[in-house]
Order: sequence, then structure tokens, then C-alpha cells
Amino acid sequence: MKSFDVVIIGGGPAGIQAALSARHAYPDKSIVVIRKEIVSLIPCGIPYTIGTLESVKADIMPDTPLINSNIEIIIGEVQKRENKKLILNTGEKIGFDKLVLATGSTPALPGIIGIDKDGIYTVKKDYDYLEQMREAARGANRVLIVGGGYIGVELADELLKLGKSVTLVELLSHLLATSLDCEFNEAVEEELTRRGCQVLTGSRVESFAGNRKVTGAYLSDDRFIEADFVIVSVGYKPNSSIAEMFGLKVDKQYGIVVDEYMQTSDKDIFAAGDCAITKNCFTGKNTAIMLASAAMAQGRLAGANLFEIKLVKSFPGTLGTFSTKIGDLAIGASGLTEQQAKAMGVDYVIGTTEAPDRHPGKLPGASKIRMKLVFARHCHILLGAQLTGGDSVGELTNMLSVMIQKKMTDMEIDTIQIGTHPLLTSSPIAYPVIGAAVNSILKWYK
Amino acid sequence: MKSFDVVIIGGGPAGIQAALSARHAYPDKSIVVIRKEIVSLIPCGIPYTIGTLESVKADIMPDTPLINSNIEIIIGEVQKRENKKLILNTGEKIGFDKLVLATGSTPALPGIIGIDKDGIYTVKKDYDYLEQMREAARGANRVLIVGGGYIGVELADELLKLGKSVTLVELLSHLLATSLDCEFNEAVEEELTRRGCQVLTGSRVESFAGNRKVTGAYLSDDRFIEADFVIVSVGYKPNSSIAEMFGLKVDKQYGIVVDEYMQTSDKDIFAAGDCAITKNCFTGKNTAIMLASAAMAQGRLAGANLFEIKLVKSFPGTLGTFSTKIGDLAIGASGLTEQQAKAMGVDYVIGTTEAPDRHPGKLPGASKIRMKLVFARHCHILLGAQLTGGDSVGELTNMLSVMIQKKMTDMEIDTIQIGTHPLLTSSPIAYPVIGAAVNSILKWYK
Repeated sequence: MKSFDVVIIGGGPAGIQAALSARHAYPDKSIVVIRKEIVSLIPCGIPYTIGTLESVKADIMPDTPLINSNIEIIIGEVQKRENKKLILNTGEKIGFDKLVLATGSTPALPGIIGIDKDGIYTVKKDYDYLEQMREAARGANRVLIVGGGYIGVELADELLKLGKSVTLVELLSHLLATSLDCEFNEAVEEELTRRGCQVLTGSRVESFAGNRKVTGAYLSDDRFIEADFVIVSVGYKPNSSIAEMFGLKVDKQYGIVVDEYMQTSDKDIFAAGDCAITKNCFTGKNTAIMLASAAMAQGRLAGANLFEIKLVKSFPGTLGTFSTKIGDLAIGASGLTEQQAKAMGVDYVIGTTEAPDRHPGKLPGASKIRMKLVFARHCHILLGAQLTGGDSVGELTNMLSVMIQKKMTDMEIDTIQIGTHPLLTSSPIAYPVIGAAVNSILKWYK
Repeated sequence: MKSFDVVIIGGGPAGIQAALSARHAYPDKSIVVIRKEIVSLIPCGIPYTIGTLESVKADIMPDTPLINSNIEIIIGEVQKRENKKLILNTGEKIGFDKLVLATGSTPALPGIIGIDKDGIYTVKKDYDYLEQMREAARGANRVLIVGGGYIGVELADELLKLGKSVTLVELLSHLLATSLDCEFNEAVEEELTRRGCQVLTGSRVESFAGNRKVTGAYLSDDRFIEADFVIVSVGYKPNSSIAEMFGLKVDKQYGIVVDEYMQTSDKDIFAAGDCAITKNCFTGKNTAIMLASAAMAQGRLAGANLFEIKLVKSFPGTLGTFSTKIGDLAIGASGLTEQQAKAMGVDYVIGTTEAPDRHPGKLPGASKIRMKLVFARHCHILLGAQLTGGDSVGELTNMLSVMIQKKMTDMEIDTIQIGTHPLLTSSPIAYPVIGAAVNSILKWYK
């Protein structure tokens, strides 16, 4: 029987990071990653395996970081635990001292009649399945996407780029409704509509039509949407069955129970990523947000805390920082939206601004940045940010995410020192992060 | 005689921001901006008026923000002060209660023999002069640029884009030597050289040749550089003569003496921007760095503090955050370089990383980000950042600048939550800001 000081189950972002972080913190320990998949995929790249990427293969996450760090990889499925020993489907037994569960998540399957018909896909992190989905997508004519979250919206964009006729159905009254206020999710809807997508918000798919193969879907208002290819993307469920089998404390809806050091109810077992429970850093309540970036942070924390809890290595809860791109429009969000602040009963002030992302704005390639910041009224602290614009939105969102995590106030942001360059950023006069903070401050003076 | 509650002398970024900030803080006060120029220019855009912009006109800063904020504009030069009254070159007299000096800076003119020949320009913030320089540049064949700071480097890039034969001469051993370590300024030198520029570092121009019109320059090693168009860009001097005339305390080299609230030695007079003295926020020593972004912050502070000093409105010293783009290579820097940390006697640790700025890296348009972070050894605090890559370098630099100003440690950055997207950022696995911090932490474990 092989034995390792550290065994990690799962080869996604959280698992890889846990392994690398354990290697950094404990250079002399033996470490293995056990995963079911022959190859790991870059999760955020999955929607782009349909169109923009030349193949699913181009989205494979290389094993070299693990190999170069002297971390073993075993392909197999854990079927049983006997005290400090795991038994794999291959019959192999693996001893462990410390264990990290990074078992990820599985697409949620809504109870729609006929959902098992051919031509209906979910977005699984599985190489062979995605190869098959890519082929089906490229051969399709009329596409229906069920679910208007980030993945649904990105898939719609990809399929539009392939020239397909696309319908996107979302149950809530807006796309991306949980991370953007109306003025921003409406911009996304407009952009998709402008590019030819049929966007049906506030709509529910009742059933899928067709014999063996799907031919379309009936909505709850009896409308029929013709489709020869369907993707259902309505969220993910944490994979917690191994944890349950191991006798760990598990929340059926939100995943494996962990503390802020990513330790489970068994002190030798940690969990990180989509499979682990996580709280929203503002509300303190469990959240269904699953993000590779949060999984990475959790994986690094788990790896560092395995043999010694390090007080600086704790997870403060999920902030929720998103970015995406639809056509030429990039969209970013971090922290609380205005709607969420209102729902929490927070007394807030809004700062808004618009500015070109190059200066002068007449430079070739300039886009308009539109930004909205949410500040707490009593302490002036930045709680949330939303923005649209050109590609610089990606890192602007991350800058705002840092500002939220460092609890910066509008007064501080007002006099923050930034660099500006005609070909790279907005003008110093109109730098949007400062502009929106000043707009908020203006409301204090009144 | 007209009288105003607030008079601002100077229409550049600091002046405009001081006016707007005064309007925000003191809605009922009367405010005027007095400037010599008919139009104000966006300072960072000036190098691009030669090539990328269709005209110098495209770089004009609009007066609408001032006009919309009920701020008057008077074109004129202040020639005298009689107590609380200014006398302009037009004979007009303007009374003031509070005064802001935002008189800017003037190109430094090195004592090179023959510098007054035709065809030799400096980079003045003057519309008519820049129109003339643009025409001369476009008509030139062989161009010589003296000074390899940001403006010199950007001008070289612009003139290469116009197809000119360009020589760039810098006295120090590297271009951009005061804000980048060797491995980064060498990347800039390679990019310029690759694009056909002759880069001569560690070289001094001794004299200019030609009768009335310049025909070239002799270097100190007797080499002759042929040129029919020369730009000398070796720094700027603060415009402090008005302040001297007003009897204010002035440092000849670094400008008008101000405290952290931008107040001069006269409690009713404030100064902001290039004309005001500023300290480096690390060394506490006077610095020659002049940046529009710092000028903006100082202008906002001055405007807010005019009638009431606000303790939160103080300037902590110049951090120095730069970004630029040469060809397709964007370059950014903030805070201390390794060289500067060494010179200050700081015990430091370096974290480095490389990562594509899209993920997977096979996506079209991906560039490689190369990043170096400098951390203080004893407290782990981020002191400086340098990076090269694609356009995302602009806002990544600003994110790093925020992290430095918030005194973040490598441990904190390790678990910061960011958003990643295939079409906008690096992969969560390889996000460079985190990657370089982890690389630094690794060195602590050893």
C-alpha cells in the first residue's frame, strides 16, 4: 500500500492549489492528487471550447506545475475510506495523514419534463462530454439555452459567434440578476439582442418536445421554442457524497461544512472549492456562488493549514467578483449590488460615472466605461462595484475588488494615486474609479 | 474690479481639479480659473499629438466641466499681486479671498551648445507650439530625441510609427532608469531597437551642428548623429516665479513649499501639481517626479481645504505610478524598484512571475505578463511593482498601486479574491499579482 503525508481528492483549481500550497508550506511532505479525469480543464474556459478555442484540448490545464513540484497524480475514484486509508475503484489502497477534499460540483438538473432527450446538454467539467457537446453545438441550427447566469450568457455569445440562431431563457426578470443591478444587466440583454439573440427573461421552460431527440421546448406561457440543441445551465451542486461517506458534517444544499481555515468536522480532513460550504462575506449567510478565484484562495488556505493552522490563512467569506465579455462589451461586478444592499437593509449612497477608457477619447479603440459604486452611508466604505466597457474592465474590476476587501472609503479613493496613459487608461481627469467616488462624496455635501 | 471667493491660477489638471473640488466642497462660493492659454491640453496625450492623434486639437481638454460647474474662465497672465488683488497683463484686476497656484512646469533646457538652432524642440504644453512641432516632425527624415524618460520613449515610438529614422540618446545607462529595474528597462530598449530605433544609453549630447537649422549632434564620444529634427526632453522645472513674486516660500529646484494640505507659507494661498513641492512617500525626500495623476489628487485636496482644513484631505507624498506603451508592449511601475529599495537600505524580498493575460493562453490576442514585486522583508509589505505585457498592464499597475498604498502584505495578496475571465484576464491558477506574491512567500519558507 502506498502512503502519502497529504492526499488531495480532485484535480480542479482548488485541488491543484491545495497541492502546490502544501508543497510550499511543507517542502518535505509526500503529496498526491487523486482525480477521476484523465485531464483537468480550465473551468472558466469551458464555454469557449464551443467556439473561440480551436478545440476542447486547448482548454486542458497542464499537469506540469504539479509534476515540477514533486506532486504525484493518480487517476482513480475514491470508493471507500477505512480510517486513514482510501480504497480506489482500481482496488488500489492509499494511506494518508492529511486529506483535502476538492471534489468540485455537478450541474444542477431542473425537473423539466423530457430533460433526458438527446441533444440536451449540461455544462460538465468532463473532456469527452465537452468534445461531444462541441460537435453537437457546431452541427446545430437552432439553439436554446436555459439559464441566464454567467455560463448561459457566455454560451449564448459563443453560439452567436458561430452564426447560430440562439434563444436564451431565464426564470428571473433579468439575465445575471444576482450580480448586477438593472441598468447593467439590461446592457447585457441589449447587447445580446443587438447581436441577434432572442432573450426571454421571466420565462420558465415547462417541457422539452421531440421523440428521442429534442425538437424544442414549451414555456410556461405555452410558447414553443424550436431547438435542435439545448444547453441547460441553471447552477451547480456541491459534490459532497464522498464527504458524507466519510462521515463528515455536510449541508445538503451548500456542501461540506468547513471553518475559516477550511478544516472539516474531522481535524485531519480539509475541503476547498465548489464542494465546500462558503458564506457571503457581507451577509454571513451561506452562498451558492461558486468561483474559480475563490476556490483557488480556499485551496491555498487548505494546503497551508494542513499540519499547522496559520492564523493569517483564513477565508473571510466569498466576496463575489465576476467579469465576462459579450460581443465587444466587457462587464464586471464585485461585492454588493444596490439591490442586495437594499435587501440587507444597508443605508447606502451610490456614486456613478462615465468616461472613455483611453484619453483623449478620440484615440482609436476607445470604449466607454460606465461605473456604479455602492458605499455604506454611515462609514463611507465601498461595498460594491459594477461596470461595463472595453477589455480594461477585467482588471478594473479586480482593482475595485481589492478596494472593497481593504474597506476603502470614498474619501480615500478620492485621493488614491493611480497611473494613467493615453493608450491604456482613462484620463486622470476622468478616471472612473475616482470619478464615481467623487460623485458619491458630492452627495455627502448635500 | 471683479472679486471671487476662490481664484485659481493655471488651467491644467491640478487647476481644473482644484476648481471642481472647491465647487463640490463650497457650493456657494464664486470661483474663477485664470490661465494664459486659450485652450488647455491633456498633458499625457501630448506625445501622441505627433502621430496617433489626428491633430493637436484632438488633445484639447474641454472646458465644459468648469462651465457646467459655474466656474468662470479668464484668459490672462498674472503680473502682480497687491495684497488680496491680482493684476493681469490685460490690466484687469481680480480680487480673491483664497488662491490656488497651479502654474505647472516648463521643460528643462540643458546647457548644450547650439540648443537654440531651428528644428530643436522641447515638449511644451502650448497649443501653437505643438502644432508647429507636429508639422516639423511629420516633415522630418532623421529624428534625434535627447532624453530617455517616459516622454522621450513615447515620442520615439510615435516617430517610429510615422516611419522616421529615430535615434534616442540617454545619459543614464538605461532608458526609464529611475522607475524600472534593468530587466524591465532592457525590455523597453529591446522593443524600441526591434522596431528600428537606434538606442544610445550612457551617452551625452555635447553640441548641436548646423547653421541656422540643426543638421545633427555630436556626442561626448565624438560620434555624430545626423538629424533634421530634434526633441529635447530631459525633465521639467516647476513654474514658481509667480509664487516668488508673491513672497511665498519656494524651493528653487522642487517648487512652491506646501504642507500635506497643499497650503503654502501664506494661509490663504494653496499650490498643487507640478509647481508645488512634493516628497516621495517612501523616502520622505523631495522628488522630481511630476505626474498628472498626483497633480489631480493634489488639486482635489487644495480645493477641499481652502476654507477649512479637512484632516482626511492630506497628501502622503508621491508614490510614482507610471504606465506606457511602446509598440505592442505595455509597461507599468509603481512604488520602489529593487534598485531604489537597495539604495535606501531596505531589506527586501523579490517575487516574480510570468503568465499569459488570457486563459487558456491559446486564446487569440493573449500576451505574456511579466511581473516583479518588491516586499519589505521584516513586515512583508508590498513596496513596489513592475510589469510588462498587453494592454491590461494599465489597470493591473493601478491595482498594484492601490495595494502598495494600502500597505498590503504578500500573505494578504495570496488570498485576495479577484475575478478572472478567459477573454479579459490571466487564469485564476496563474493570476500574476497572486503568483508573484506566492513566489515571494516561498522565499520566506526557505
